Amino acid sequence: MKELNEAILKWGRANGKDVVKVDMFLNHRIDTALMFEMGEELARHFASAHPTLVLTVEASGIALAITAAHALGNIPVTFAKKSATVVQDGTMAQAKVFSFTHKQENIIRVDERYLPVKSRVLIVDDFLADGQAVRGMMDLCRQLDCTVCGVGIGVEKGFQMGGKKLREEGIDLYSLAIIDSIADGNIHIRE
Amino acid sequence: MKELNEAILKWGRANGKDVVKVDMFLNHRIDTALMFEMGEELARHFASAHPTLVLTVEASGIALAITAAHALGNIPVTFAKKSATVVQDGTMAQAKVFSFTHKQENIIRVDERYLPVKSRVLIVDDFLADGQAVRGMMDLCRQLDCTVCGVGIGVEKGFQMGGKKLREEGIDLYSLAIIDSIADGNIHIRE
Repeated sequence: MKELNEAILKWGRANGKDVVKVDMFLNHRIDTALMFEMGEELARHFASAHPTLVLTVEASGIALAITAAHALGNIPVTFAKKSATVVQDGTMAQAKVFSFTHKQENIIRVDERYLPVKSRVLIVDDFLADGQAVRGMMDLCRQLDCTVCGVGIGVEKGFQMGGKKLREEGIDLYSLAIIDSIADGNIHIRE
Repeated sequence: MKELNEAILKWGRANGKDVVKVDMFLNHRIDTALMFEMGEELARHFASAHPTLVLTVEASGIALAITAAHALGNIPVTFAKKSATVVQDGTMAQAKVFSFTHKQENIIRVDERYLPVKSRVLIVDDFLADGQAVRGMMDLCRQLDCTVCGVGIGVEKGFQMGGKKLREEGIDLYSLAIIDSIADGNIHIRE
């Protein structure tokens, strides 16, 4: 997606060989106009799969999830949680996710009422590297007998294996930008 | 706000005397259409204060923040973070926030680049009880020499003192719904 590629080249900061910081416009500060364009582009791609719900995980996936859900005709968003709340009153489905950024294993959880059986789910996240968060969300969908009709991503790190493996498994994975490599402080984006 | 009051009465669940669960439509599952109406209503109220940035805190404030920012003409959103990332490269301003829900003190932090000096800030959050999160965000604004031009809230628990104290201090606090009391499992909303 042209506007996103331009934002990455303008504002993204390479750090070593495998870290790209896009917090200027995607996951700390949000460029609101760009985020709405990204949601609309995901909707264009996935509309024909007729998702009934967008699933993401807190926190930085929420903005892209809601703009995509809006563009898909205001379908609901459910965001999986990383911490247990003190006043939980529903049955929670759980899945394990290893975070390479934070170097720890997290549990993500979703109240079963908010990921109803037989939902047609579009999984959305801001970033895809090893694909652990997406796999955790696919696990939640499997447990609750939902269909994953696609995975929409803001920025994919194409030099890590998460996206490649998901595509090989036949998942309709659509990343709005794919970073192919980082070399000498330069970010190379796949055309 | 009529649609939000109706959603609270239809889907909100009272728990004891002071807990209201609104996770069916506000902060776990999101009713996308309602969230956009809420953002538009905040924008109607705060447009004349000319905010240049919406500040919220992860995670559940993000959805309302971005719909409000969109309705205010696509001004940027910055969300304060609760956990330190491994690959932080900027200078972070910090503030302490005590969470009554999780019974612990958290640090919220924001990269100083994303809350620029002299910003006119609209603080947004999904929920207001004791006002600790809002006070933490006001503290960040003070540290970075920004003007708080208002505070927009989804649901305020009017029987806790957070909102009352902020209004007494002259803050333009606008809550889209105010819950006055919870008694015998019934939620009473201020007209």
